[in-house]
Amino acid sequence: MQEKVHFKTMEKDNDCYQPFISANPITSFNKNQIYPNIDKTAYLSPFTSVIGDVTVSSNVFIAPNVSIRADEGTPFVIGSNTNIQDHVVFHGLLNKLISYAGKKYSIFVGNEVTIAHGALIHGPCFIGDRVFVGFNSIVYNALVGEGAFISINSVVTNGVRIAANRFVPPGAHIDTQEKADSLSQIPKENKAFSQEVQRVNQEFPASYHVHFGKKCCSCGIPYND
Amino acid sequence: MQEKVHFKTMEKDNDCYQPFISANPITSFNKNQIYPNIDKTAYLSPFTSVIGDVTVSSNVFIAPNVSIRADEGTPFVIGSNTNIQDHVVFHGLLNKLISYAGKKYSIFVGNEVTIAHGALIHGPCFIGDRVFVGFNSIVYNALVGEGAFISINSVVTNGVRIAANRFVPPGAHIDTQEKADSLSQIPKENKAFSQEVQRVNQEFPASYHVHFGKKCCSCGIPYND
Amino acid sequence: MQEKVHFKTMEKDNDCYQPFISANPITSFNKNQIYPNIDKTAYLSPFTSVIGDVTVSSNVFIAPNVSIRADEGTPFVIGSNTNIQDHVVFHGLLNKLISYAGKKYSIFVGNEVTIAHGALIHGPCFIGDRVFVGFNSIVYNALVGEGAFISINSVVTNGVRIAANRFVPPGAHIDTQEKADSLSQIPKENKAFSQEVQRVNQEFPASYHVHFGKKCCSCGIPYND
Repeated sequence: MQEKVHFKTMEKDNDCYQPFISANPITSFNKNQIYPNIDKTAYLSPFTSVIGDVTVSSNVFIAPNVSIRADEGTPFVIGSNTNIQDHVVFHGLLNKLISYAGKKYSIFVGNEVTIAHGALIHGPCFIGDRVFVGFNSIVYNALVGEGAFISINSVVTNGVRIAANRFVPPGAHIDTQEKADSLSQIPKENKAFSQEVQRVNQEFPASYHVHFGKKCCSCGIPYND
Repeated sequence: MQEKVHFKTMEKDNDCYQPFISANPITSFNKNQIYPNIDKTAYLSPFTSVIGDVTVSSNVFIAPNVSIRADEGTPFVIGSNTNIQDHVVFHGLLNKLISYAGKKYSIFVGNEVTIAHGALIHGPCFIGDRVFVGFNSIVYNALVGEGAFISINSVVTNGVRIAANRFVPPGAHIDTQEKADSLSQIPKENKAFSQEVQRVNQEFPASYHVHFGKKCCSCGIPYND
Repeated sequence: MQEKVHFKTMEKDNDCYQPFISANPITSFNKNQIYPNIDKTAYLSPFTSVIGDVTVSSNVFIAPNVSIRADEGTPFVIGSNTNIQDHVVFHGLLNKLISYAGKKYSIFVGNEVTIAHGALIHGPCFIGDRVFVGFNSIVYNALVGEGAFISINSVVTNGVRIAANRFVPPGAHIDTQEKADSLSQIPKENKAFSQEVQRVNQEFPASYHVHFGKKCCSCGIPYND
């Protein structure tokens, strides 16, 4: 009953499970073609795209079917040890940027951030270190302080600024600063959960690289040159 | 730190970043195999599928990880200059069709429509010219008049008919004609936003074709035959 | 105006439209590499991944851009005749398992289940036979009894147990046992709808295999060895 696993080597020119990594196209609003800058310790899964001026830092894990597309708003930065789960989209509006440490970005995501399955990260936005973005949630035109926890199915938008370590409840629609300011502190159990998700996901880049690296088949068995 | 970009030519038989374009399979309810009819000026991104009787008109832009699958309800039409963002799904129920201009369709989408990231367009449905469908919204069993604006995370369903230029607010669930009839007119700023999104996206098909066209590598550098 | 369909044979080593099927990587929390066990009558679409200890039973249909990733919580079982629509994600939390018939699972999905477009099935969870999970809905840390109907955009979570044949209304957030216990019985029209979706989708695996099988091009035309 078990189907044969496809033996496909990862260095071959015709390997089909490599992510799509490309410069942005030239447009009237973006005349420079810039390639993604991807740290070699990051791992990008099959059926995932990274286009344009995107920095992917060390030990980032990107799951299958993720689209990171800096062809309009640009640049994007993704910090170290951040994980980006299946079906996440990164995209940014033209000419709408946030400032951080003296530079301008469409999307800046810090270190040890978790972007859970199906979330949408749409520039302009800033997401601080150790933020957790829950299933199917949307961060768009917002600044999210470090350690905040954005629960499942919620929206943070309309230029709001979420303070550090705040908790956005499930299904919330935070679209005024008043709503943002009234958020409570992150409960201890959510902080612990977020840390556990980090612990698990920080193992993935190296583990997947051993499994699918330059000297392995997609089946995980090493081969000789 | 910069990873090598994969040089893969786009005309080679083994190019892996071509969208998947195919006729529908033969079933008891659909005995004709029909190929998509895709205008050569449209651009389809990697990891995107188009299956069955689907017309993709001129200058349509389709982002990565989009699935347009006319294997059940059929046919689908997508009008000129329409853009379909990352992770959108088009699918239709069997034998549930809408009528437009004397013909029957599972899904008819007009010209200069924007279907934003993560939206689901499920037949039977009609979407008029210049409609904007927001992030993660669902249009299913509905008729949406031209110029309407469907905000983020909303649902339009249950056979409702939305009049032209109406505004569906964020998170709304429009499932009765009474709710549909009580919608207000589209605010000026949303109309302007929708037009700006069109302006940007109408540049993409030609720009991406130059970048990834028949004479280029996926890295954007032209090569000689 | 019709673009040339790409003729790519399905048995060639460089075929790019095969799903990605792989063992899980080795991690500190998962030291065994296990390959998916996929029944040969199941059909998996392009741009779809199945990773790790996943059993895919007979006549399962899996649409494009689905990610089934048993690299953390494991194992997953998917029963016969179940269909998994475009953009669905299966993933599970580490060390959080459900018990069924004397064994432990991260995710157990029964027979003749429909998982509609964009749904997220996150372990630990159990989904009984003939359950319908609607568009964009989330089942995470829950037990769903056979024949239940989970409507569009809803969430079932926080350890709740849904009794057989209950109806979760659109947009509901069922996160307490009290809410779960107050759900009404599935209406007749929803039961009929669910059965019709099964009828249609149970035809797909064999139909797609004829179309894209070992002896066909992706265009559906048979070729000779």
